[in-house]
Amino acid sequence: MPRYRLTIEYDGTAFAGWQRQANAFSVQQALEEAIFAFTGEAVTVHGAGRTDAGVHARGQVAHIDLAAEWRTDTVRDATNAHLRPHAVAVLAAERVDEDFQARFSAVRRAYEYVLIDRRAPLALERGRAWHVPVRLDAAAMHAGAQHLLGKHDFTTFRAAECQAKSPVKTLERLDVSREGESVVIRAAARSFLHHQVRSMAGSLKLVGEGRWPPARMAAALAACDRAACGPVAPACGLTLMRVDYPAK
Amino acid sequence: MPRYRLTIEYDGTAFAGWQRQANAFSVQQALEEAIFAFTGEAVTVHGAGRTDAGVHARGQVAHIDLAAEWRTDTVRDATNAHLRPHAVAVLAAERVDEDFQARFSAVRRAYEYVLIDRRAPLALERGRAWHVPVRLDAAAMHAGAQHLLGKHDFTTFRAAECQAKSPVKTLERLDVSREGESVVIRAAARSFLHHQVRSMAGSLKLVGEGRWPPARMAAALAACDRAACGPVAPACGLTLMRVDYPAK
Repeated sequence: MPRYRLTIEYDGTAFAGWQRQANAFSVQQALEEAIFAFTGEAVTVHGAGRTDAGVHARGQVAHIDLAAEWRTDTVRDATNAHLRPHAVAVLAAERVDEDFQARFSAVRRAYEYVLIDRRAPLALERGRAWHVPVRLDAAAMHAGAQHLLGKHDFTTFRAAECQAKSPVKTLERLDVSREGESVVIRAAARSFLHHQVRSMAGSLKLVGEGRWPPARMAAALAACDRAACGPVAPACGLTLMRVDYPAK
Repeated sequence: MPRYRLTIEYDGTAFAGWQRQANAFSVQQALEEAIFAFTGEAVTVHGAGRTDAGVHARGQVAHIDLAAEWRTDTVRDATNAHLRPHAVAVLAAERVDEDFQARFSAVRRAYEYVLIDRRAPLALERGRAWHVPVRLDAAAMHAGAQHLLGKHDFTTFRAAECQAKSPVKTLERLDVSREGESVVIRAAARSFLHHQVRSMAGSLKLVGEGRWPPARMAAALAACDRAACGPVAPACGLTLMRVDYPAK
């Protein structure tokens, strides 16, 4: 059966996350229903990353197998037509080999976490950023973040319900920069533990507020203890930006 | 009575525009109700620009007169507390002289109009940009826009219901630039006619699609005829960015 790779954007606000669930509406279900409406086939949409409720995506990747050979533009446009009115869009559809697996073939995931540090509540960025009413020191946050780079046991920054076999991951990038009234955290790794980016963001916010010195990030990591983590940052600030695969 | 100047952000999606109306909820009403809840005073919030339904603001300015002298931080924070859950926020409150008038003292209004030109529908920018499914030529749009700069009779780009005494306005800036998958139009003038920015944006979109040569903007302007205007661009792409006042 022909396999297609989909690049997907969504506003996570109204969804119970990526993954299909019995009693709540997910991005995966929205896509599977749209593809069924268009092809008549009950397919599984295999995503690269199972984002939580409220988390957004600009470059989620998924694969599907369809019985028929369709033009890729038709796969994209017909799926989008049936996705309305949900806030999900297929940006691109491509034919891929049968050994392509959105989740297991991925070599890098890149996320952004946005904080807005101002006194006034958010109107235009509500649901898109974490509102922090005090000024953050982005340079201190960046310094703290550098302690987490490389291959480590990330137990401290791992959700209790995480199903990964090993807590060891290699963090390739964790940059923090100020952009106007936003502080943006950019994270990249082959893969992340459940809640890892939000856990790191929650601890870095404490650094930004001056409540933790930057070096406490190293101590928290070394503790290998969930209790050493700051409060997990809210989902709304997080966006899955892209998923990379090996060059052919 | 002490006069306060407010700088205001809002997501215009859920509002029937800035101005108070009998049968629809406006940004002005949200603010007046919040200020009443906080001060017990039934004030009028005088805005600098009466934005249409669906139009957003990052820097709307308004003035209010309150019987009591309040700390400006209190005016901002207490109003914001009572604005919940509406997508309106007071970014700043300042004491101003009694001759300050948000509308009549303004010397410049700056707007941004955002178009996103891609095949896929918008998920994350829905309600924030005009989705155009074909590629736009931003350089041609910019060239066309330059024909409108300066002092002209803008009848072509004026809504039928516009209440301004004169159709003559001086357009200070109309820049068009590509920023990733967005095309951004930046407009500035002392004041604009009703629907002027959206009318100019609608015509520039025809230039971007190659349906109008850039010089047709000059011909449309010279016609002084509403029928010479392209279809008015939708409200959702427009944001009032700032309002400037004379330096003291």
